[in-house]
Amino acid sequence: MARPFNFGPGPAMLPESVLQIVQAELLDWKGRGLSIIEMTHRGDDFLSIARKAEADLRQLIGIPNHYKILFLQGGATGQNAAVPLNLLGDKKTADYVNTGHWSTRSINEAKKYCDVHIAASSENSGFWHVPPQSEWKFSADPAYVHICSNETISGVEYSFMPDTGAIPLVADMSSNILSRPFDINKFGLIYAGAQKNIGPTGVTLVIVREDLLGKVKSVCPSVIDYTLELGYEWMYNTPPTFPVYVSGLVFEWIIKKGGLAAIEKINIEKANKLYAEVDRTGFYTNKVNKRDRSRMNVTFYLPTPELDQRFAQEAKTRDLLNLKGHKVAGGIRASIYNAMPMAGVDALIAFMRDFEKRYG
Amino acid sequence: MARPFNFGPGPAMLPESVLQIVQAELLDWKGRGLSIIEMTHRGDDFLSIARKAEADLRQLIGIPNHYKILFLQGGATGQNAAVPLNLLGDKKTADYVNTGHWSTRSINEAKKYCDVHIAASSENSGFWHVPPQSEWKFSADPAYVHICSNETISGVEYSFMPDTGAIPLVADMSSNILSRPFDINKFGLIYAGAQKNIGPTGVTLVIVREDLLGKVKSVCPSVIDYTLELGYEWMYNTPPTFPVYVSGLVFEWIIKKGGLAAIEKINIEKANKLYAEVDRTGFYTNKVNKRDRSRMNVTFYLPTPELDQRFAQEAKTRDLLNLKGHKVAGGIRASIYNAMPMAGVDALIAFMRDFEKRYG
Repeated sequence: MARPFNFGPGPAMLPESVLQIVQAELLDWKGRGLSIIEMTHRGDDFLSIARKAEADLRQLIGIPNHYKILFLQGGATGQNAAVPLNLLGDKKTADYVNTGHWSTRSINEAKKYCDVHIAASSENSGFWHVPPQSEWKFSADPAYVHICSNETISGVEYSFMPDTGAIPLVADMSSNILSRPFDINKFGLIYAGAQKNIGPTGVTLVIVREDLLGKVKSVCPSVIDYTLELGYEWMYNTPPTFPVYVSGLVFEWIIKKGGLAAIEKINIEKANKLYAEVDRTGFYTNKVNKRDRSRMNVTFYLPTPELDQRFAQEAKTRDLLNLKGHKVAGGIRASIYNAMPMAGVDALIAFMRDFEKRYG
Repeated sequence: MARPFNFGPGPAMLPESVLQIVQAELLDWKGRGLSIIEMTHRGDDFLSIARKAEADLRQLIGIPNHYKILFLQGGATGQNAAVPLNLLGDKKTADYVNTGHWSTRSINEAKKYCDVHIAASSENSGFWHVPPQSEWKFSADPAYVHICSNETISGVEYSFMPDTGAIPLVADMSSNILSRPFDINKFGLIYAGAQKNIGPTGVTLVIVREDLLGKVKSVCPSVIDYTLELGYEWMYNTPPTFPVYVSGLVFEWIIKKGGLAAIEKINIEKANKLYAEVDRTGFYTNKVNKRDRSRMNVTFYLPTPELDQRFAQEAKTRDLLNLKGHKVAGGIRASIYNAMPMAGVDALIAFMRDFEKRYG
């Protein structure tokens, strides 16, 4: 049976070949007679899985050794607390760029621990653009500058690499990590929930430059204390072994595809095709500033909310799932992460044309 | 092929029938054409899984409605911070009973947030017993009393239900929850990492009496703020869907087995058999006060550390895995959680007899 195309924003589609490996190995990982979910995290078998996942990720992104990798729990929402708790040190202020719902969530969490200075915001446009760096105004002595590199709800993505000089740049990359190459050396820290481009929900990736460590606040819970967790190779507490294992298989899948440059090429092609259809006649409308259109979450509106609803409902009957936009934004949202094949985009475009013929 | 018996302390064995369901459904959950790990946590399908898991757990333990259930991330180690952050309110002190490694970890984490009063400790015995309640001394006005109901390293388990009067009783039940019936009404809050008797690592169960909520500290990260998470039905952040799903299957498996009373009967039989063999000749020695011997983690020593090592190594060649004791305690540890069948205990006993014949 052909699998439906799942355009949900996350937990999202995974490569079918990865799922097939997981299924085949589920009761017996490599002849051990045990399931991966029954294995001790302290044994050679799981450690080999964990170390290979780390090494493959280093290769994919190009992560130098002075950046440390952690696989933690609690998602990006947990990291919204972890970042100020670990990076503030003696500083009182952190700078944030507000580009929408997820930036706002990061900002509100940081306010528990420090003064938040909004370096720039796109709230005045209804979050339909990314403020160009020429508009950013840093505070006098921020501990870091925080951005959300892709906002899933409006479908807005950074098209440029911010330059924050000596101020450490921190990014929530949950929804576009591994979708394109990027220079990790421009960042002090990045974090990402797994459930879009990495693997199953339940594991959170953190990549941190080691010189930023060692100044954790005393009220920081141990499970999000980077320095402590790194001392235990991120296993101070029992790690989420299954999501780490599946993430490792996804990294292998990306490497086989040719790495991030190859993935980016496909992602550009998928997004361009879909935006071209959105723009073709005016029946569909995307509100995002063109330069800032997300390659991962393509949002658009039909002429009326009733048609939005009908579109998502009819699409479902054609095995095009979860196209309804977030309740904050309404409309339609097609999330086309790495695992969405071109055939899924083509099927959506065909449906859009058919729908427009019937209702346009 | 017969599966090996995994005596590891966790992540631990899961029922084979549960693993078979997971495997069968892995690419296509109930005809949806999607894997459980690709499904949105906000959709009817995952919500039905989550609600059924909660309902089954309520039925198994007998949880009244004024106790709330959360499935969070971060393990018991995360809860060691969450408990004081959520329950202290205006109080300055919390009382802890120290019965070993895991109690000590809870105590050290709580010290970040409050004055810790040790109400009782078994440190003087090397943590080989549980202090009887007659020895407990509470502080003047504690926010709660914390216990660890089973210590996996020494193999020590509470055989009695503490009575703390009006002081809320909090228990880390990670390693013996669901192994026997217990009266939840005696507790203010219990928590448990999943990876022993519940399901895969990556999900943490919290059961909390609702009158204890609503006084969270301002520095508490949102992901462990019980009140906030309950307002979002524990989905303020994306929950660990796969471990919740597997845990739900384990709850169904226990219900089919006859519930906690039936499980307890088997667990008593398994533990009694194994301790009887440990005690039979004196070749094997268990150091735990007899009343406090754990039904979940049976620890014993051979006449020399060299024999301990040889025992664990030879056992491995007979498909009896992970019997080496924790490095803190040395010796041998056989973890016999719910999913360990009687056949596994019988095989271990047969090996113990054979080993003793050869080396005794």
